[in-house]
Amino acid sequence: MNPNERTSALFTDLYEITMARAYLEEGRTGLAVFETFFRRLPKNRGYVVAAGLEDVLDFLEDFHFEPDELEWLAGLGAYPRHFLERLGQLRFDGDVWAVPEGTVVFPYEPIVQIIAPIHVAQLLETYVLNQIHFQSVIATKAARMVDAARGRALVEFGARRAHGTDAAIKAVRASYLAGFDGTSNVLAAWRYGIPPFGTMAHSYVQSHGSEARAFEIFARLFPGTTLLVDTYDTLRAVDEVVALARRMGPDFQVGAIRLDSGDLGALAREARARLDAAGLGQVKIFASSNLDEWELAALVGAGAPIDVFGVGTRLVISTDAPTLDMAYKLVEYEGVGRTKLSAGKPIYPGGKQVFRRVEGGRFVEDVIARHSEWFPGEPLLVQVMAGGKRLLREGLPQARRRAREQVAALPPEVRALDPTAEYPVRFSKRLQQDLEALRQARA
Amino acid sequence: MNPNERTSALFTDLYEITMARAYLEEGRTGLAVFETFFRRLPKNRGYVVAAGLEDVLDFLEDFHFEPDELEWLAGLGAYPRHFLERLGQLRFDGDVWAVPEGTVVFPYEPIVQIIAPIHVAQLLETYVLNQIHFQSVIATKAARMVDAARGRALVEFGARRAHGTDAAIKAVRASYLAGFDGTSNVLAAWRYGIPPFGTMAHSYVQSHGSEARAFEIFARLFPGTTLLVDTYDTLRAVDEVVALARRMGPDFQVGAIRLDSGDLGALAREARARLDAAGLGQVKIFASSNLDEWELAALVGAGAPIDVFGVGTRLVISTDAPTLDMAYKLVEYEGVGRTKLSAGKPIYPGGKQVFRRVEGGRFVEDVIARHSEWFPGEPLLVQVMAGGKRLLREGLPQARRRAREQVAALPPEVRALDPTAEYPVRFSKRLQQDLEALRQARA
Repeated sequence: MNPNERTSALFTDLYEITMARAYLEEGRTGLAVFETFFRRLPKNRGYVVAAGLEDVLDFLEDFHFEPDELEWLAGLGAYPRHFLERLGQLRFDGDVWAVPEGTVVFPYEPIVQIIAPIHVAQLLETYVLNQIHFQSVIATKAARMVDAARGRALVEFGARRAHGTDAAIKAVRASYLAGFDGTSNVLAAWRYGIPPFGTMAHSYVQSHGSEARAFEIFARLFPGTTLLVDTYDTLRAVDEVVALARRMGPDFQVGAIRLDSGDLGALAREARARLDAAGLGQVKIFASSNLDEWELAALVGAGAPIDVFGVGTRLVISTDAPTLDMAYKLVEYEGVGRTKLSAGKPIYPGGKQVFRRVEGGRFVEDVIARHSEWFPGEPLLVQVMAGGKRLLREGLPQARRRAREQVAALPPEVRALDPTAEYPVRFSKRLQQDLEALRQARA
Repeated sequence: MNPNERTSALFTDLYEITMARAYLEEGRTGLAVFETFFRRLPKNRGYVVAAGLEDVLDFLEDFHFEPDELEWLAGLGAYPRHFLERLGQLRFDGDVWAVPEGTVVFPYEPIVQIIAPIHVAQLLETYVLNQIHFQSVIATKAARMVDAARGRALVEFGARRAHGTDAAIKAVRASYLAGFDGTSNVLAAWRYGIPPFGTMAHSYVQSHGSEARAFEIFARLFPGTTLLVDTYDTLRAVDEVVALARRMGPDFQVGAIRLDSGDLGALAREARARLDAAGLGQVKIFASSNLDEWELAALVGAGAPIDVFGVGTRLVISTDAPTLDMAYKLVEYEGVGRTKLSAGKPIYPGGKQVFRRVEGGRFVEDVIARHSEWFPGEPLLVQVMAGGKRLLREGLPQARRRAREQVAALPPEVRALDPTAEYPVRFSKRLQQDLEALRQARA
């Protein structure tokens, strides 16, 4: 099995295909600019870490309909043969501008900008949003956990509670991008070259009845392993580990014990004391159990002697903020800015660029402007595809480095787990005037 | 592209493979019973609708490691050749008992029970949980929305905000199972034979500049279509629909208008009045915009003239309760009950059955008992696989019927959007004694 499967072009909403037909019938195939952005930061979030671009570019490079997909569409009765033939010939030959993965972004800043004939660009909406949205949600949550862990190692553990298989795998990718150290997910480790981590489950201990037996067999087979100590009584199991070390002598190479329930801080302290008293200072402590960034911060802040954290559900679901109000919107058609005035959801017309002012290594202000404008600071969007050909191909390590650098450059009050200030973002005068002009024209 | 792809056997956690090696090295390959259940109902939930079994059975039927998967595992350096050869020969040849999809379940009731050699059963944990958990979360949320809509049609719209592609597709499956009428997701419609629905996007209107033009072209191409009326000013756009009907005369076959922002109730009432005044009583009203079950109930309760609801984010994320505390636990090994006493997370030992007492068509009480016990009422778990061969293969329509019947049989105070009572579930005396005995033995 190839770990990188094709995503079907039918991963779209029916109206995209219906509109594609309408556009083609009308000969309305001019160049459109669609932008992906989010409108509001959720509670508890001062910034968003952009992620998912790599999957979008893979999808665009290979975008096509297979014969059996067209056959099935034909059976719906809404699409004539001549349209399905056109659909069968479609490839993505447009341009893409985007902020590289790991860039921090704020409301209304374009994350991905697609410039292509409108009937083609329209078909891409569902997949682009599906991937950029989820991976950005998770990269953001993970970046907060990395901050909270202050240098302790973090391992992703969430496959079982992630929303389906794709989420399980992409959550590994996004969390590693944001600074995590590894994952328990074997398929994701393979796909992305991320270090896989594994300990033992309660079932292993249970099947042996006694921890002494289970630990000894495991420790002899896997010398550097981690032993799970909370199946029956955590501290009693720590004593079993100490007893095992005495029995095994120099053969005892156990790397860590794992706590998975109870008061992790108190248990870690007591376990550390017992291990140290037995001369087992090299045995690390691994802890997991429904952790989020606030609990990580509390444990680390209180000096709990925990070396590695395993994080699952609250990372891969981003439980406190599982969605962003993200959209993929037409902002320009045939060179003319387009808007939408639906209640509470305005669109600023025209293709855009974002300029970020940096002073003394710290981000100071962003300006969202028309693509043709110029402001001081670094332009965030770079061209990543031209005429359907990929210009950017970067490894996950590079995006990972960028994510840490970007988060480190945020104002502390924006970066905080409980942010106390909004990062300053303004729209260029030109953008504001363009929106106002379209509003007036409609009034 | 085959819409039903194989899921790699590497979709597992590293420790499952590590434990499989330990079990095999030790010759510990006896029969184990693992049960999947959840421990607590989230806030706002009186019951859970079980779903995901079909995908689990597909996975088990085809469970095997491919040569390139084994090759990659070999490269990790932790698994010797003789073990990887055994892994390559593994197939699932165990028994499975489960509650059929669409059954309502409560805390601690086994949803899926896997009986197989322990090293095999262990490897399945991640995928079984990943699918049963997510699909049950969504089927439950959807069942509540179906109740709230009181017979109005519901269409799933969430692909763009779902957590990845698998979630997008499985959310369609689970919501249809719970009573939804269709989806906008083309790939899922293909895979599951679910009716696809589609209207138009704001971008279509925007690209034309004028609604009059956009509506007319669309209405001529797709006679029974739905026109989106909130791009600029909803009621003005409704007037455009009326004007179009006058222009087109008998050619005007538009099926519905769609509201997507603002005060849906008030806009629906005013739109209905204008359409009716123009003799367009046959044009239905479709509404969407971040709806959940409480908003559906409020709109329906207030008599808003909305015929079809489109539901996205809050369904496919189950925003208010995106996870269940679900586990896959060893309860028996070689005929002996097993437990785990970790703080707050006890396991009742032994393979189980659930007996549901029904009186006058209403569910009255469940008893969770040892598999060998007998209680009055209907046993919920049925055997769905024997020796790796599938016994149950039912269509989605059958599960869908069951889900509606089961929800209808719940006590009203358990079924309510804001439940006011817990459904009565008790453990058999035998189960309680078995847990107590194991506790004593450990004390």
